[in-house]
Amino acid sequence: MKKPHILITNDDGFEAPGILKLTEIMCELGDVTVVAPEDPMSGSGHAITVRSPLRLKMRSRNNGLEIWSCKGTPVDCVKLGEQVVMRKKPDLVVSGINHGSNASVNIVYSGTMAAVLESTISGIPSIGFSICDYNHHADFSKVDKYIKQIAGQVLKNGLPEFTCLNVNIPATNGLEINGVKVCQQANARWVEEFDERKDPANRDYYWLTGKFELLDNREDTDEWALRQNYVSVVPVHYDLTARHAMDHIKKFDLDV
Amino acid sequence: MKKPHILITNDDGFEAPGILKLTEIMCELGDVTVVAPEDPMSGSGHAITVRSPLRLKMRSRNNGLEIWSCKGTPVDCVKLGEQVVMRKKPDLVVSGINHGSNASVNIVYSGTMAAVLESTISGIPSIGFSICDYNHHADFSKVDKYIKQIAGQVLKNGLPEFTCLNVNIPATNGLEINGVKVCQQANARWVEEFDERKDPANRDYYWLTGKFELLDNREDTDEWALRQNYVSVVPVHYDLTARHAMDHIKKFDLDV
Repeated sequence: MKKPHILITNDDGFEAPGILKLTEIMCELGDVTVVAPEDPMSGSGHAITVRSPLRLKMRSRNNGLEIWSCKGTPVDCVKLGEQVVMRKKPDLVVSGINHGSNASVNIVYSGTMAAVLESTISGIPSIGFSICDYNHHADFSKVDKYIKQIAGQVLKNGLPEFTCLNVNIPATNGLEINGVKVCQQANARWVEEFDERKDPANRDYYWLTGKFELLDNREDTDEWALRQNYVSVVPVHYDLTARHAMDHIKKFDLDV
Repeated sequence: MKKPHILITNDDGFEAPGILKLTEIMCELGDVTVVAPEDPMSGSGHAITVRSPLRLKMRSRNNGLEIWSCKGTPVDCVKLGEQVVMRKKPDLVVSGINHGSNASVNIVYSGTMAAVLESTISGIPSIGFSICDYNHHADFSKVDKYIKQIAGQVLKNGLPEFTCLNVNIPATNGLEINGVKVCQQANARWVEEFDERKDPANRDYYWLTGKFELLDNREDTDEWALRQNYVSVVPVHYDLTARHAMDHIKKFDLDV
């Protein structure tokens, strides 16, 4: 079998421990091209750069592994990786390993998952990996076999059209992981609070802070699986149509 | 009945003609607070500002209309609007009128719709309005009655929990609109091309360009409605679980 060509990106920047770990694992599965942001871009959502030009920098190249950085968002990296660096469709796009959970509603803010959705839109099997530990020095010692197995299964079996995977790994802290659960996205929200301060000129400014609030007690969600120490795998698409709401809206008086 | 309090934002900036038009219409329905980005933020997706502080600037206040600008993303504006400016939950959040379509896959990149999804997460009935005309001087002469009717119906009937509306208005160019259709999101993609250039120091840089490609010939989608000169209304949620893909993924060998 021909070696697959794998494109890797993330939102923590090309030098983050999470992407180095993911690169190491993917090199066992195929040829690897990394195109990742030059600087950390957490919380960048599905942002794209349309008002300024983009630049790429080759960082290293050896033995089928190329590493590039880009002054742009994770979505920019996927677009540039596919169209300028590789100049062909990769067989697989993976993003991460994100330092911090992208389970539940976090997917909406996530640059890691935005990159994966972008390659899904262009028809490439794609997986986002995150570990539920914001620490720069998160414990990645237990993740290898899970990531390798999930990526291997996607390479072997493919994914349904326009669908990708959102994979979250519990913070292990030396503990064993219980296994893998295929789940649905839990409902939750961030209860935000702004830290209000005054600058030296006595002008107000605000730092965003917040607390995660789970609004879901179902036992087949990603949050549930993670809290039981399982790796959660959620199949994800970008059709946001709320089909359950159609009947309600169709009763509106919209004759103008 | 108590006058509703309406929060308005957008991603084209607080001075864009689209938000001025939307503000004018909403002032007929309630008290209005505008909190919008200081500068255009198109393509900002669901980005949030976590690495730098945010600032707010009061621009004007009279007769129940307050206008603020913020050095942040549309999602930041909604968070600040609710928690710092209004210090209560508004009865309705509206975003737009965006200069350019947010139908179909455009919703993924849209700062306008990200703002609306954000207020939906915090439980507020929310609507994003866009006109399919990128021109700064788009023709808004036919939009009033549609926007007023849709917003009025949402204020009257509410929306199902965790669901908002993505409303797109065809580019009218003086033509009459045929009416309103409740639709699902069409599948499409942007076929990107990068415009590759050299700077004066002979270094490469890239501008993102692209062409919209519809991958959907169903007759109940937003793209279909817009092409028939109807206003499209898609109920939208932020549960990205691809339920149709569950069975496929559950057949994977994930025993590690």
